[in-house]
Amino acid sequence: MEPDALAALRGLLGEARVLTEPADLAHYGRDWTRQVAPAPSAVALPESAGEVQAIVRWAIAHRVALVPSGGRTGLSGGAVAAAGEVVVALDRMNRVLDFDPIDRSLTVQAGIATEAVHNAAAERGLFYPVDFASKGSSQIGGNVSTNAGGIKVLRYGMTRDRVTGLKVVTGTGEVLDLNRGLVKNATGYDLRHLFIGAEGTLGIVVEATLALAEPPADPKVMLLALPDAAAIMRVFDAFRSAVALTAFEFFTDRALAHVLARGAQRALDTDAPFYVVCEFDAVGEAEARALAAFERCAGDGLLLDGVIGQSGAQNAELWALREGISESLAPHLPYKNDVSVRVSAMPAFMAEAQALIAREYPDFEVVWFGHIGDGNLHINILKPQALAHPDFVRECGRVTALLGEVIARHGGSVSAEHGVGLLKKPYLGHTRSAAEVELMRGIRRVFDPHGILNPGKLFD
Amino acid sequence: MEPDALAALRGLLGEARVLTEPADLAHYGRDWTRQVAPAPSAVALPESAGEVQAIVRWAIAHRVALVPSGGRTGLSGGAVAAAGEVVVALDRMNRVLDFDPIDRSLTVQAGIATEAVHNAAAERGLFYPVDFASKGSSQIGGNVSTNAGGIKVLRYGMTRDRVTGLKVVTGTGEVLDLNRGLVKNATGYDLRHLFIGAEGTLGIVVEATLALAEPPADPKVMLLALPDAAAIMRVFDAFRSAVALTAFEFFTDRALAHVLARGAQRALDTDAPFYVVCEFDAVGEAEARALAAFERCAGDGLLLDGVIGQSGAQNAELWALREGISESLAPHLPYKNDVSVRVSAMPAFMAEAQALIAREYPDFEVVWFGHIGDGNLHINILKPQALAHPDFVRECGRVTALLGEVIARHGGSVSAEHGVGLLKKPYLGHTRSAAEVELMRGIRRVFDPHGILNPGKLFD
Repeated sequence: MEPDALAALRGLLGEARVLTEPADLAHYGRDWTRQVAPAPSAVALPESAGEVQAIVRWAIAHRVALVPSGGRTGLSGGAVAAAGEVVVALDRMNRVLDFDPIDRSLTVQAGIATEAVHNAAAERGLFYPVDFASKGSSQIGGNVSTNAGGIKVLRYGMTRDRVTGLKVVTGTGEVLDLNRGLVKNATGYDLRHLFIGAEGTLGIVVEATLALAEPPADPKVMLLALPDAAAIMRVFDAFRSAVALTAFEFFTDRALAHVLARGAQRALDTDAPFYVVCEFDAVGEAEARALAAFERCAGDGLLLDGVIGQSGAQNAELWALREGISESLAPHLPYKNDVSVRVSAMPAFMAEAQALIAREYPDFEVVWFGHIGDGNLHINILKPQALAHPDFVRECGRVTALLGEVIARHGGSVSAEHGVGLLKKPYLGHTRSAAEVELMRGIRRVFDPHGILNPGKLFD
Repeated sequence: MEPDALAALRGLLGEARVLTEPADLAHYGRDWTRQVAPAPSAVALPESAGEVQAIVRWAIAHRVALVPSGGRTGLSGGAVAAAGEVVVALDRMNRVLDFDPIDRSLTVQAGIATEAVHNAAAERGLFYPVDFASKGSSQIGGNVSTNAGGIKVLRYGMTRDRVTGLKVVTGTGEVLDLNRGLVKNATGYDLRHLFIGAEGTLGIVVEATLALAEPPADPKVMLLALPDAAAIMRVFDAFRSAVALTAFEFFTDRALAHVLARGAQRALDTDAPFYVVCEFDAVGEAEARALAAFERCAGDGLLLDGVIGQSGAQNAELWALREGISESLAPHLPYKNDVSVRVSAMPAFMAEAQALIAREYPDFEVVWFGHIGDGNLHINILKPQALAHPDFVRECGRVTALLGEVIARHGGSVSAEHGVGLLKKPYLGHTRSAAEVELMRGIRRVFDPHGILNPGKLFD
């Protein structure tokens, strides 16, 4: 970046909010992926929508690329700045701006952490249901930009289903105030939904209005042990028919071993190849119906064992077996596949994917878990100690391309909830047609004609 | 249209499926609005997505504009063909293509009637919840293209919340197969949501995959009589806190008078200025809680009277008082305003709108009703016998512009669920900013570079 450009940026934000120290560049230049080395030229810390607008106009004038940056917990490299970009970190825009008890809506700045939104909702007697392991660090702007899902999609939907208003700054520096919390608004294209999942390529999200829900009545959590993969979807169907499920999450014995090795409490004595954590509210006869479903499944040989949480603390312990998986794998530098198919396609897809992976990764440890009630599997390949990281990534990329063909055959997605970013770009064509990508390219030119917003991400 | 163009179209579809008789042109050229005279040059009746694609390619080659056409129950002129266009009527594409019991999804062609979808879902033990008075004629393609809402949005959401897959033909003749029923798919811009509510200006919807719901358990319907406008939102809040409402619909004494004059059964002896029909499922203690809410509201002077349906037949009679309004007004050629604000803004907005309308329409009969639980009001102005229709429309347009300013001040929408079409175009700027409209224009050029899809609708 030219020195006069940097000076102009400092003129906009002040010295203290434009970082250029190597440690800051390294910190703000990457997300939870570790495949691409960070190399931004500066980090800008705006404190208002107006300052974000000023940064965009500055970027246009000086032809500098921007990388919008939230909690940087992303797993596809969407927030990585590896090519001299300026990182626009929303950290200082983390306030609750408004709450309305009639609309049951919370308006927040984009840099607020997901967990802070949970807390803000709870303090007001309500509930923000988008929930996942990185909630302490991830920010709402990032949630919006990847349409974050998580563990309660089954009942409450994705981030998309919660956003009733969105304020964004486009690539031309326009501030758009989209939908403003309306339930019904049939006045042309819903641009709000275009920004949700756009990974910061169409604009920078600066505020969001979120629809809150009633708090869960009396959540019950069960851990189930299953004899084989074929049982998973049959148990899902039995429980879904019995109760209104909030979550239905599965993981393998290998995933459990990693979580237990990190100190989690064993909850069942029975060893099984597959486990499920499910949750539902104990309204009316729900608990009795769930237990009856359990007995029926056990009688049919679909369940080996199970336990139901008897307290909030025990529920938390059961959830920890599922929620702790990602963290327990982190030291092994896992290569992550985050794929989905229609729920009905899951048994056939899973059998084919398992066979492919067993064949192609004979020597790698593979850990399966995920939101199987949404048709979403996380397949984590662990790096063998002896293998160099670049070789490991190259080998995983080769198999991901093969997996992409299986996904395409089953009509699925190469990224269910992690986005495309840098890492999944080579596989986008397995899920989106060439015509779709060309239309996306056209839309991007409309919103970012100068090509300054997260260039190189999503597609070229 | 040039004779060789017409001959080429007949070559594609055969003589019988290209209509040019004056009666057919008049029938297919208009929707439920009566303000613009229909004048299409032909009507095409495709039977497959491939034929729709062929029609689009033909239109590009011969520079002919197309008007996609469903049940033509629209109230904003979005399906009117008044300028020599070719109407593409989806009537013959009305089949159920697929049902999956695990995904609980129904894939249908775009020309299927809304009510036929209700029936197809019920035959499979499930429920399609998008429900409104014109369901017998309206088609799914039109529902998608206006993001249809209706009476059960409070619990089940809009059409947007039900569409998990969409097949469309764009203005360049590309067939897009969007999202294919996936719950989670984070692979770039969700083009599906762009087509929902686009009023046929970006592409022609040819198929939709719809998420079905569990059928309602045991629906209870109440009719409530309220003493004043201020009570409406307070009663809403009391009932919403007591039970999970499926619907909360309001109408005035004038609306009731029209429905009763058309033969509906009176259900309450008490005369009141405002009425509400609400619905909830009688699960657990819901009925007792609703009755307690009723008693509390009556004690606070917010309710004058009420009745709860004791049978399916009585529920239907109560609903008929609300559902019959539009039809009862039709002979009076009403000018329709379909506006929304945030639910919290409703009391202040309604007071201001009522004052404006009383002042500006001293001699016109005005009938208010709507989905007030969604912040959505239908304000119908009835034409006095003595006034010529063009004069009436001009006068209503003048007041609509004033109402638009009130709506803008309250952050609302000039079209909550009817779309923009031709009739609401002059008021679009009260809800969408100039920057938003310019972006919409850019998107339209990407999807329809030849300007053949419903030109002149939504915006110029």
